[in-house]
Amino acid sequence: MAVTTKSIKIHSKGENDMIDLTEEISNFVKKSDISNGTITVFVSGSTGSVTTIEYEPGLIKDFPKMLDRMSPRDIDYGHEQMWHDGNGHSHVKASLMGPSLTVPFIDGELCLGTWQQIVFLELDTRNRTRNLILQIIGE
Amino acid sequence: MAVTTKSIKIHSKGENDMIDLTEEISNFVKKSDISNGTITVFVSGSTGSVTTIEYEPGLIKDFPKMLDRMSPRDIDYGHEQMWHDGNGHSHVKASLMGPSLTVPFIDGELCLGTWQQIVFLELDTRNRTRNLILQIIGE
Amino acid sequence: MAVTTKSIKIHSKGENDMIDLTEEISNFVKKSDISNGTITVFVSGSTGSVTTIEYEPGLIKDFPKMLDRMSPRDIDYGHEQMWHDGNGHSHVKASLMGPSLTVPFIDGELCLGTWQQIVFLELDTRNRTRNLILQIIGE
Repeated sequence: MAVTTKSIKIHSKGENDMIDLTEEISNFVKKSDISNGTITVFVSGSTGSVTTIEYEPGLIKDFPKMLDRMSPRDIDYGHEQMWHDGNGHSHVKASLMGPSLTVPFIDGELCLGTWQQIVFLELDTRNRTRNLILQIIGE
Repeated sequence: MAVTTKSIKIHSKGENDMIDLTEEISNFVKKSDISNGTITVFVSGSTGSVTTIEYEPGLIKDFPKMLDRMSPRDIDYGHEQMWHDGNGHSHVKASLMGPSLTVPFIDGELCLGTWQQIVFLELDTRNRTRNLILQIIGE
Repeated sequence: MAVTTKSIKIHSKGENDMIDLTEEISNFVKKSDISNGTITVFVSGSTGSVTTIEYEPGLIKDFPKMLDRMSPRDIDYGHEQMWHDGNGHSHVKASLMGPSLTVPFIDGELCLGTWQQIVFLELDTRNRTRNLILQIIGE
């Protein structure tokens, strides 16, 4: 049993930018000495998130639209009254989605479905450089 | 420390079918040689999800209804324009809920509350055979 | 590699009470003999949840308000018809958020962002004593 951790930087282009991380994460798992275990993908920050989705042009817009229905930008947020940075909606969306994703792998292969990719979703209102933690635990 | 992984097939009866997995997962943990650790339950696929809930006839309808409020079937989805398979709402719901659940166990017993069951929720628009990964890490 | 588990009690003050657990969890990680790994925070119970958020007076109200938009208290719930305990909305919110959070740590330090705290959110309709499981796996 061992733990391997890697910190990566990703650069988002602005609000609702969805970035496919599958290849990078898959390569990190394959190149590790660990054959079976889980990888945890964690967003250090409170206005971004990770999940899985079929990464195609329709859904990468449909998914942020659903979050907007739940938490529109143009309603009142207590966060705004204090900080005036216009991203109250970003914070509540990120807390709902959660900052971490755990994916098992077997014989070095992520247990993803054929149409299932691992993505980062930028929820803040501008482009950001993001720090993600990739941590493998297994044997 | 060790890792034990099992892939299981489950058969859903259609959209919003919620299946109680608690007994199967509990038995898998008990029969393993691992006393303390976590089990990760992962859905390989982009239109199903896992969570915990009090599994009773009211909530197994209340919960899908909430998801329908957030992402109704009868609004426009970019996914539909490209794929015409009528399940854009299924995808966005699944990405919101996330594909994985992590549950700790102590002395072979899952740390669930009395009224807390582990469930799979079918979000696709038809019955499906689903591949779930159960992975135990512990000692 | 080792596993260390701790069960803690927390006391919520009522519906939507959000409690900052960061210091307690951080101390538990630092005092363990494990330098690198993940900590899983798990709510034993079906009407509470854990996530990360910037813990400040605005957001601790904004976030529950979003959940209320998705699942208001004053609509019909099947759960209510059977149990008459007035917390159908609490259950569906908790199942959406999920009961567990996984956070990696490196050299004994949680990989949280500067403005990112770990919180428990009470979703039930009254004050509760809650049982949370903290489980560290690593080396």
